[in-house]
Amino acid sequence: MSELVLYIGNKNYSSWSFRPWFALRALEIEFREQLVPFDMAAGNPAFSEFSPTNKVPVLEHGHLRIWESLAIMEYLNDLFYTKHVWPHEHDNRAHARAISCEMLSGFSALRSECPMNMRREPASLDVSEAARRDVRRIETIWRECLERHGGPFLFGHFTAADAMFAPVVNRFDIYRLTTDPAALSYMDHIKSLPAWKEWEAAGRAESWIVEEDEV
Amino acid sequence: MSELVLYIGNKNYSSWSFRPWFALRALEIEFREQLVPFDMAAGNPAFSEFSPTNKVPVLEHGHLRIWESLAIMEYLNDLFYTKHVWPHEHDNRAHARAISCEMLSGFSALRSECPMNMRREPASLDVSEAARRDVRRIETIWRECLERHGGPFLFGHFTAADAMFAPVVNRFDIYRLTTDPAALSYMDHIKSLPAWKEWEAAGRAESWIVEEDEV
Repeated sequence: MSELVLYIGNKNYSSWSFRPWFALRALEIEFREQLVPFDMAAGNPAFSEFSPTNKVPVLEHGHLRIWESLAIMEYLNDLFYTKHVWPHEHDNRAHARAISCEMLSGFSALRSECPMNMRREPASLDVSEAARRDVRRIETIWRECLERHGGPFLFGHFTAADAMFAPVVNRFDIYRLTTDPAALSYMDHIKSLPAWKEWEAAGRAESWIVEEDEV
Repeated sequence: MSELVLYIGNKNYSSWSFRPWFALRALEIEFREQLVPFDMAAGNPAFSEFSPTNKVPVLEHGHLRIWESLAIMEYLNDLFYTKHVWPHEHDNRAHARAISCEMLSGFSALRSECPMNMRREPASLDVSEAARRDVRRIETIWRECLERHGGPFLFGHFTAADAMFAPVVNRFDIYRLTTDPAALSYMDHIKSLPAWKEWEAAGRAESWIVEEDEV
């Protein structure tokens, strides 16, 4: 089989890069990482060489290039069926996809007010009522999944849904956005994964990145 | 098998309702439509009775409720494999999902400036540069698919990707947003489908809907 190559932007701020990277690593799927640094403000014209949307992430597999993190998850599910990238049961799989689509298209207040930032020291942040609504909805999503499947991951074992929400784990953590015990316990479990620690350490070490005013 | 029930909002304006409805009808999958009218400005509190996000569409199948249009497409693909809701070949399926994710999460300028409206008489509209960029990207997406697969649909036969872009066909049409011959020919083909004509006629006949200032 051809090598899988994942194009990503940076590890400190790029939440979209993080999702498929985290899924690949946590599911122990071999791949090569291709980090193309970019200036957060200006973007990176080099992205146009491999990405039809000029955005990361992109997964390259032989002649095929797949953009959009959720489409990458689906491709991994097709290619590595025994890894159970999505839950095996069709009803749980549908549920996992529904909440992953919510993450892909929604929570815009949370996403714009509370950027992922792997090296920020945790400290609470005042956020808008819209962002608080986003937080409450995500708490509900997590709690329902954890209660139904008994944890430690959203659907028992690790799936693409956990990867889709991984940047939210960082946001809830560094901006102190939740006090929900179920959420905090889930976040601890995600943060204890070797894949998380590897990404976090790399993000903190990114001295090349152009500094922004951090929130 | 339990009956499939699709909850939708209205047919004139609700682009998200249109996508799974159009897929179901065009792929000749039997379902019952449950239209729950809503006031465009206020939303509809009744949505909370069947939708965890208070939004439509929702697909009900026995005990299972699936929200998010793209998750509904995936469920239909799992359930009706012989319908080829997505393209059969894994590389084309990945491509179809990538452009469908772009539609789900992107094109915000086009979506906010140019709402779907089944009864608007076509007339050109001045739009922002951001919306024009969205139009050009969609023209590129369509052109690449149509050239690669020879049409008449994006991947040769009708797939969920056509359904995901169906509201854009209306937007391009009523606001006169494209002069690209490939796009216009594709739009003609979509608009000639019985499923399109059925939805359009119903949208035009929605006299109960609270009128907004139309663009």
